[in-house]
Amino acid sequence: MFLLLRTGCTPEERNNLLRGLEEIGISVQVSEGHHRTVIGIEGNEDRLRDMALDRFPGVEKVVPLATPHPLAARESNPAGTVVEVGPVRIGAGRPAVIAGPCSVEDADLFVAAAHAVKRAGADMLRGGAFKPRTSPYLFRGLGKRGLQILRETGDAVDLPVVTEAMDTRHTDLVAEYSDMVQVGSRNMQNYPLLEAVADTGLPVLLKRGRACTVTEWLCAAEYILNRGNAQVVLCERGLVSFDGAVRNLLDLSCVPLLKQLSHLPVVVDPSHGTGRCELVAPMARAAVAAGADGVMIEVHPDPVHALSDARQAILPEQLESLVPRLHAIHAVLGPAADTP
Amino acid sequence: MFLLLRTGCTPEERNNLLRGLEEIGISVQVSEGHHRTVIGIEGNEDRLRDMALDRFPGVEKVVPLATPHPLAARESNPAGTVVEVGPVRIGAGRPAVIAGPCSVEDADLFVAAAHAVKRAGADMLRGGAFKPRTSPYLFRGLGKRGLQILRETGDAVDLPVVTEAMDTRHTDLVAEYSDMVQVGSRNMQNYPLLEAVADTGLPVLLKRGRACTVTEWLCAAEYILNRGNAQVVLCERGLVSFDGAVRNLLDLSCVPLLKQLSHLPVVVDPSHGTGRCELVAPMARAAVAAGADGVMIEVHPDPVHALSDARQAILPEQLESLVPRLHAIHAVLGPAADTP
Amino acid sequence: MFLLLRTGCTPEERNNLLRGLEEIGISVQVSEGHHRTVIGIEGNEDRLRDMALDRFPGVEKVVPLATPHPLAARESNPAGTVVEVGPVRIGAGRPAVIAGPCSVEDADLFVAAAHAVKRAGADMLRGGAFKPRTSPYLFRGLGKRGLQILRETGDAVDLPVVTEAMDTRHTDLVAEYSDMVQVGSRNMQNYPLLEAVADTGLPVLLKRGRACTVTEWLCAAEYILNRGNAQVVLCERGLVSFDGAVRNLLDLSCVPLLKQLSHLPVVVDPSHGTGRCELVAPMARAAVAAGADGVMIEVHPDPVHALSDARQAILPEQLESLVPRLHAIHAVLGPAADTP
Amino acid sequence: MFLLLRTGCTPEERNNLLRGLEEIGISVQVSEGHHRTVIGIEGNEDRLRDMALDRFPGVEKVVPLATPHPLAARESNPAGTVVEVGPVRIGAGRPAVIAGPCSVEDADLFVAAAHAVKRAGADMLRGGAFKPRTSPYLFRGLGKRGLQILRETGDAVDLPVVTEAMDTRHTDLVAEYSDMVQVGSRNMQNYPLLEAVADTGLPVLLKRGRACTVTEWLCAAEYILNRGNAQVVLCERGLVSFDGAVRNLLDLSCVPLLKQLSHLPVVVDPSHGTGRCELVAPMARAAVAAGADGVMIEVHPDPVHALSDARQAILPEQLESLVPRLHAIHAVLGPAADTP
Repeated sequence: MFLLLRTGCTPEERNNLLRGLEEIGISVQVSEGHHRTVIGIEGNEDRLRDMALDRFPGVEKVVPLATPHPLAARESNPAGTVVEVGPVRIGAGRPAVIAGPCSVEDADLFVAAAHAVKRAGADMLRGGAFKPRTSPYLFRGLGKRGLQILRETGDAVDLPVVTEAMDTRHTDLVAEYSDMVQVGSRNMQNYPLLEAVADTGLPVLLKRGRACTVTEWLCAAEYILNRGNAQVVLCERGLVSFDGAVRNLLDLSCVPLLKQLSHLPVVVDPSHGTGRCELVAPMARAAVAAGADGVMIEVHPDPVHALSDARQAILPEQLESLVPRLHAIHAVLGPAADTP
Repeated sequence: MFLLLRTGCTPEERNNLLRGLEEIGISVQVSEGHHRTVIGIEGNEDRLRDMALDRFPGVEKVVPLATPHPLAARESNPAGTVVEVGPVRIGAGRPAVIAGPCSVEDADLFVAAAHAVKRAGADMLRGGAFKPRTSPYLFRGLGKRGLQILRETGDAVDLPVVTEAMDTRHTDLVAEYSDMVQVGSRNMQNYPLLEAVADTGLPVLLKRGRACTVTEWLCAAEYILNRGNAQVVLCERGLVSFDGAVRNLLDLSCVPLLKQLSHLPVVVDPSHGTGRCELVAPMARAAVAAGADGVMIEVHPDPVHALSDARQAILPEQLESLVPRLHAIHAVLGPAADTP
Repeated sequence: MFLLLRTGCTPEERNNLLRGLEEIGISVQVSEGHHRTVIGIEGNEDRLRDMALDRFPGVEKVVPLATPHPLAARESNPAGTVVEVGPVRIGAGRPAVIAGPCSVEDADLFVAAAHAVKRAGADMLRGGAFKPRTSPYLFRGLGKRGLQILRETGDAVDLPVVTEAMDTRHTDLVAEYSDMVQVGSRNMQNYPLLEAVADTGLPVLLKRGRACTVTEWLCAAEYILNRGNAQVVLCERGLVSFDGAVRNLLDLSCVPLLKQLSHLPVVVDPSHGTGRCELVAPMARAAVAAGADGVMIEVHPDPVHALSDARQAILPEQLESLVPRLHAIHAVLGPAADTP
Repeated sequence: MFLLLRTGCTPEERNNLLRGLEEIGISVQVSEGHHRTVIGIEGNEDRLRDMALDRFPGVEKVVPLATPHPLAARESNPAGTVVEVGPVRIGAGRPAVIAGPCSVEDADLFVAAAHAVKRAGADMLRGGAFKPRTSPYLFRGLGKRGLQILRETGDAVDLPVVTEAMDTRHTDLVAEYSDMVQVGSRNMQNYPLLEAVADTGLPVLLKRGRACTVTEWLCAAEYILNRGNAQVVLCERGLVSFDGAVRNLLDLSCVPLLKQLSHLPVVVDPSHGTGRCELVAPMARAAVAAGADGVMIEVHPDPVHALSDARQAILPEQLESLVPRLHAIHAVLGPAADTP
C-alpha cells in the first residue's frame, strides 16, 4: 500500500501520521520527492483496509497494492484449477454442458427431461429443489423430495447432478443428494452460507451476484477456498441492467478477465443471463468463443407449463442442435487463443 | 392480468390458448375488438406469473395488474404502520435517529460512543456483532460477546438497540439481546433468513439490496409480513453506481415513492448510502426533507481507529449539530407536505 | 394502445376520459368486463405518447402496442438490410472486419498501420480526425488534415474508410473524405447531428450510447431512416458499468435481440467495449459467435505511443491471428443458427 | 502522477521505461524501496493520460494525481462562483426557483403558465423551443417562434428566461432570445456544442448526462470555462436506473460532493429527475436540504394536455405551496451546515 501525502502537508501532520502508523505496529518506508512525499507500507493490507488512512490530515490518496483474494488469484495456481464432478472435468479444455429444468417439479417430467438433455449431449444435470423466489407466493421447490428425485434421476441417466443450497441449516441435506452444490446469485455475499457450503467438501458452483464486481466475486470464492475447499467453479449469470429488454445483462467480458485474474474455471448461464429463450443459444456460443469452461442451460420439454422461469427455457431439440456447435467453436480457438 | 393477442392470431392459436388456460382451471373473459382480442383473467396472478403465457403462439403481451405484495401495499393499511421499538415509534411523525458505531469492537469504547450519541439526541443505538465483510480476512465482529456488550450498553444509556442477524442459525441468539433485528443489504433476498427473523417476533429493519427494485424490496418485506410479523421498517442505504466518487448512490426518491406504494415506515442510512463522512449530514437532512421516518447514522468517537467502515463515520459533535436541524426540517414539512 | 380503468372507476371519470379522447379526435373501442373496463385505441400512438393518459382520473394503466420505430423494425424489411460500403457488404453473411488506429495522428504512422491491418485481413479502415475527448486538454484529432490522410491512405491500401462526424457544421466535410460516417456513442441522441449525417447520403455507423436502451438506439436509427437514408449499421461498444474492472460493459446479448427486432446489421466494437487490449480478441470471437455482422477493432503498431485510447489497441499481429478465427466461428454457425 | 513498478521488474524493463519517458521529454523522480520502486512524474498529466503507461513492461499501476478539470475545481475559486442571470444570483445563498412548462406550445397557454409560476414565487422562467425527443415522430418544439414567445412572455412577467440549444448552428439564435442557455442531458458530452454555447457569452445551465460521472460532468464544464465563460451552473437531473419505478434516479449526493470539488453552483431538476409529478415536491425539498443552490421544476396549468413530459409536471398551486417550504428549509441549514 502507498500513501501519497498532500503537496502542502505540514511536518506536524506528517509526524502525526507516522506516529499513528507506528502505534499500530506498521513499518513504513518514506520517499521524499521535490514536491511530494510517498509512504510505502509493506505487509498484510487487510488490517489497513479497515482503517480510513485517508482521514489522517495530510494524506491525499491511499493506493492499495495487494490482492484481497490471494487464494483465488491466478498466481496461487498458474496452471489453472480443474474441478472434478464425477467424471466431468471443468476447466480441463472441453466445455462442460450443464443442463436441465429450472426446478424439479414432478418425477416423471424430470426423468423425461433428464433423458432428453442426456441425449442432447449434456455432461451434467441441474434441477432446483430449494428455489429462491422474489415473492413468497411463488413455487419454492419440492425441498427434500426434490433432492431425492434429482439424485435418482441423475443415477438413472448416469449424469452427475448439481442443485442449490439456500440455508445454512440445509447444506448437509443438499450435499447428501448432490454431486456439486450451487450458491445462487442472491446468496453470493451470504458469507455463513459460503462457509457452510465449503464445509460439505463437495465442489461448489458459485454464481455471481447481479450487482457484484469481479473482485467481490473472487472475494466470495476466497471465503470457500479459505475453508480448505479448492473446488470452486465461477458462474456468470447476468448483471442488473437499465434496459428492460432483457432480464439481466450477461457479462461475457468477465470470462477472459477471470482467466487473467484467477485460476478458477468459469461457466456461463445464458438462461438466467438473458431471461429470454431466443437469446440462449447465441449467448451460449458466444460464451464458449470467449473462452468459458462450460455453460449452464435451462431445458424443459414443455416450457409453457413449467412452474418457474418458463420464459427462458429452451427445448431439448434446441440443445441438441447447440451442443455440437459449442464443441466446434471450442475447437476453433486453439491453445494460443485460450488465454487472453 | 390481461393477455393481448396478436393482430394476426389465428382461431386455432386462440382456441389452443383458451383450452390451455381452461386446463389449469383459469376462467377468462374475452373482449373482441375490431383488430384485436383482449383476454382478461381475474383471480390470483401468482400462479400465472410462474407460467410464460407469452410463449403461447398468438399472445403478444401479458399485462399484470395485481400487486405481488398485497400485505405490504398501502391499501392494506392506508393509515400507515407505526413500528414500536421500546418507547420509539417509527412512522408516527417525528423522525427517529438511530446512531452508533458500525461495529461493537470494545466495551469501553462502545459505552463512550453510546453516551455520546445519546447526548447528541439519538433515539436508538446501533452496533454490529455479526458483520458481513467482503473479504474473509477482515474483522467480522465479536459475535455473542458483541451482542452482550450491545445489550448492556443500551440498558446503561437507556436506548433501545438494533443489530444485524446474518445466519438462520443465529436469529434466536440475536433476538435474545436486541430490541430490533436488522437484515442487511446483502441479505435482502436471503429468504430463509427473512422468515427466521420474522419468526423472532421482534420488529425488523429491512435494508434494501443495492441492486434491488422497490418492488423486489416490498416483496422481501412481504416474506416477513406473510409470517405474521407486521413490524417492518424499510431502510434505504444506497444503490450500486457507475460513479466511483461515492461508495453507493443514495436513492431518496424511493422515500416518497414508498409512501405511495406501502404503509411501512422508511428510514435512510446516509452513512453506507454515500460511504463518505462529509456527505452524511447533508443527505440526512435531505432524507427528512423527502419525508423519511428516520435516519440511521454511523457515529464513532475515533473514526481513524475504527475496525470497519471508518471512512463513513461522523463524530459525535457532528451528530449533535445535525439532530436539531433534522427536527426543524421535519417541522417545516407540515402535514400536507408529508404525503407526496 | 390500451387503457385499463381502475376497478372503482366512476361513471363520471369514465365519461370525462372518453370525452377527453373524443375532443382530440381519437376513436376508441370500449370492452366491459365483469370487474374492469378496457379501452382500446387504434391508430398512431405518437400523439398519445406525448399525453399523460394515466393522469386522467380512473385510468390505472396505459399499455402501448405500436413500435416507436416502424422503419427500423424487422417487419419493415424481414429479409434484413445489407449495407454496402464500397465492395464491403455488411449484413450479407461474412463478418466484416473494420480496423485501424483510434485516431489519425501522423501520415507515415497511419500508412504503416493501414498496410498492417490490410495484411491482417481487415475489410475496412477506421481512424478518427475529429475526436470527442472527455477533457478539453486532450488530443482532439487533426481535423481536415486527418481526413485527408485517411482518404489518401484508404486509397493507397484499397480499403474503404469510416470516420466520425461530431458537429452539424462538419458533416459535409467529413462526407467528402469518407465512405461511411460514424456517429459516436456520446452523440447517439444528438438528433440534429443524426439528421445532418443522414443527409450526406453516405452509409452511417451508429454507435450505441453507453446508457441507451435497445429501443432508444433503434429510435436514433429511425431519425436517419426517416430522412430517407436506409444504410445504417448499428455498433455496440459497451455500456456503463458499476465494475471498474472494465472501461465499459460489452452487451453481446443485444446482437441476437436486434436480429429479432430490426433488419439493420449489427457490428461490435470490443476495443471501446472493454477498454483493455487483452479482452479484445476473446470478445471479438464472442461477438461473431453471437451472430454479429462484423467487428470494429483498434489496431496500432505502437500502442504505447498512441495519442488516444492506447490501453485498448491490439497489435497488427494479434489481428492477423484473430481474423481467420472469426471466419471459422462464423462458418460453424450455419444458416439455421444465425437467427435466434 | 506516480508509476508503481512490479516487484519483479527487471533492470532492463526499468531502463526501457525511463528511456521511453525521457524520449518524450518527461522528467521523473525515482524512489527506491526495499521491494518496490516508485516513479514520480511532475508536470502536465494530460499528455500522459493519453499514453498507456501501464502497458510498459514492469509497470504495475499508474496513479494520477492532478485534477483533469483545474478551472472547475474548488481550488480555482474557493469562495464559490455566483452566476447572475438578470437580477437572479445563483450560488449566493437563497435557492433560485426556475419554473415553467417543459416546452413552449402556444402563446396564450405559455403566458398563463408564466403568470402562474411568477405568482407562485419562481425566480426564472423556463420553456423549450428546441426539444430533443427520443422518437422523430414526437413534438420537437416550435423553434424560432417558440423562442420569440419565450422572450416576450419573460419580459411580460418580468422574469429572466432559460431555454435549450441543441445544434451548433442555432446557438446564436438561442442566445438572441434568452438570458441563459441550457445544454441538455443528452448533449453534456457534445463538445462542439459546449464550445459554441460558451462563445455566446451568456450564462450556461449544464445538465448532467444520465450516465456521466461527476468528474466527466466537471470536465464538460471545463470545456466552457476554458473558452473564457465562467458563468456555469450545474444541473443534476437524474441518472439511468435499473428500477423502472422512476424514469430517472435523482442523485442528490452529488450536491454536497460538488460543493467540495467545485466552485460552480448546483441546481436540481426533480421533474426530469424522477419523471413522476408526485415525487417532485419532496425531492425539491430534499435538494435544498442537501445544499442545492436552486431547483428547476416543470409546471403546467393543464398537464394532461401538455405536448411533452406531461407525466412529470406539477400544477401552479403545488408550486405555490412548495416555494415557501424551500425557503424555510434553506433557513434551517445555517451557514455552518451549508458546507459538507
